[in-house]
Amino acid sequence: MASGRPASGEDALIARYFRPLATDPGAFGLDDDAAALKSNGEDVVVTTDAIVEGVHFLPDDPPDTVARKALRVNLSDLAAKGAAPAGFVLTLALRGVDDAWLKPFAAALGEDATQFNCPLLGGDTVSTPGPLMVSVTAFGRVPPGKMVHRSGARPGERVMVTGTVGDAALGLAILGGGKVHAAATDLAARAALVGRYRVPQPRVAMAEIVRGFANAAMDVSDGLAGDLTKLCGVSGVSAVIDLASIPLSDAARDLVARGVVGLETLIAGGDDYEILCVVPEDRVEAFAQAARRSGVAVSSIGTVIAGVMAPRFIDAQGKEIVFERLSYSHF
Amino acid sequence: MASGRPASGEDALIARYFRPLATDPGAFGLDDDAAALKSNGEDVVVTTDAIVEGVHFLPDDPPDTVARKALRVNLSDLAAKGAAPAGFVLTLALRGVDDAWLKPFAAALGEDATQFNCPLLGGDTVSTPGPLMVSVTAFGRVPPGKMVHRSGARPGERVMVTGTVGDAALGLAILGGGKVHAAATDLAARAALVGRYRVPQPRVAMAEIVRGFANAAMDVSDGLAGDLTKLCGVSGVSAVIDLASIPLSDAARDLVARGVVGLETLIAGGDDYEILCVVPEDRVEAFAQAARRSGVAVSSIGTVIAGVMAPRFIDAQGKEIVFERLSYSHF
Repeated sequence: MASGRPASGEDALIARYFRPLATDPGAFGLDDDAAALKSNGEDVVVTTDAIVEGVHFLPDDPPDTVARKALRVNLSDLAAKGAAPAGFVLTLALRGVDDAWLKPFAAALGEDATQFNCPLLGGDTVSTPGPLMVSVTAFGRVPPGKMVHRSGARPGERVMVTGTVGDAALGLAILGGGKVHAAATDLAARAALVGRYRVPQPRVAMAEIVRGFANAAMDVSDGLAGDLTKLCGVSGVSAVIDLASIPLSDAARDLVARGVVGLETLIAGGDDYEILCVVPEDRVEAFAQAARRSGVAVSSIGTVIAGVMAPRFIDAQGKEIVFERLSYSHF
Repeated sequence: MASGRPASGEDALIARYFRPLATDPGAFGLDDDAAALKSNGEDVVVTTDAIVEGVHFLPDDPPDTVARKALRVNLSDLAAKGAAPAGFVLTLALRGVDDAWLKPFAAALGEDATQFNCPLLGGDTVSTPGPLMVSVTAFGRVPPGKMVHRSGARPGERVMVTGTVGDAALGLAILGGGKVHAAATDLAARAALVGRYRVPQPRVAMAEIVRGFANAAMDVSDGLAGDLTKLCGVSGVSAVIDLASIPLSDAARDLVARGVVGLETLIAGGDDYEILCVVPEDRVEAFAQAARRSGVAVSSIGTVIAGVMAPRFIDAQGKEIVFERLSYSHF
């Protein structure tokens, strides 16, 4: 992003909507071709996630929620890696300049950038005849060598997850109409589930705690079951998960109890943006306390075991449940 | 980008095509949610540019050229900021998995990453029903506080540009058929112009020289005239440009001489990816020598003057030429 004298619609767009967000000195007021992350002796953690209209958000999702989701899915990755936010760049593919859409989009993006201490550093705005796309690359900082990986899980350690799982998948199902929409008659519960789909709550407050306690971590974005399978795969271990321990919201628990959805919908559905991590047995209590103090509930859902098999899921009766689908895939 | 056991088409795609490119230890083999740029005491320069099918490249452009262009437009920004490449992340929006397209795309991307010492660090692959889009965020390193800005130009300094200007605009015109195509009968010249549109030559070798000599710099991506206007605007100065000094390739000079295109087409056309910079008068000779030693020709095209007017363009007869269009704009 760059602009001198407003020579083009692109420059005017940037000056109007995005320059006010570029509060960090390293953004150079979006007046340059690049931003600079000052060296402070820490490693820079880099993550990138894009959201596409019709795939990650719906065409009639409010623009403020689209902005928040685009940034927050990246903040979620940073938190799971133990990194404190440092800033982000934005690539926006638009069909045209729609002020009624851009104004609330930029305002919400600015609010989130402030709230999460993650300033806009730069970006690119391009025209597309296709669906709207918002691509964010976000930066965080960790002490040298201290990024938390997917690969550190060892047998005997406990599998932990923050918050509740599956709400966003239910929110998406509600927006799609159909049986979940029909069954979710409680309007407050319905709004809460839709809210979890549209506006994730990245666990930024957990970054330092994850770094302090977890031997492996990732954020849950494509479904708990599939993401756990990935973490185990990279770590060269397996896991046994106690299905009854998976944390569900009251609304989700109610829909499962009434037979509207199965557990598979919840643990293979995407968009949770919770943190899945592995903590040594003797540190679980201290980890949970630290999380609670930061306002985040964590649940122990199983144990890492040796082996290369996919994780196993055991129900309350001790019976293994095999799921057909573990996660969301784009292709 | 991340993959454990190949659980999805997305993971398989990444493992097959992109993991071989992730040679840097900070990429963690694309097995994680994020990459890490190790602290080495230097600032990290960040730039992001996306290219969209039908806008920045043509639907039937060969996939290897699309890959090279996506990376090189970003390398061009880094070079103009005086930064040595450190790595990049890639966001790829695809309609589906087309191996015949992806294989040469990834192979060329890997070749360029090696050639320019800019390894793939991570990315995201998403599905889209719309046009293909390749978004790259690239990282470079400069000594603390040494990024070269657009804002440092002062009256009396010389305006310099690398290479030749306007060839890519002619290449695009040739691909579009019409009068330029009809007039460019020399097949070698035609191929050279098309090549400049499809595969920019980023001036990576100039990074350190720009840092050493230039008080302001940017890469020329949206047209020399418009980009110079931006640089002057941010610097709070104006400039007088000698149109006869603007470096043209033989092919471009021939098309101008024959009246096929006007100079406006060349200096307002995009995709040059040359470096425009401002150098103090007494350092111009040393700058030009250093550039030549690195294999890059540079031309002096004018002088920075005080004022806030847009730059003026003077022809060989001393007459001011006013151009209708200064640059490419998306909106």
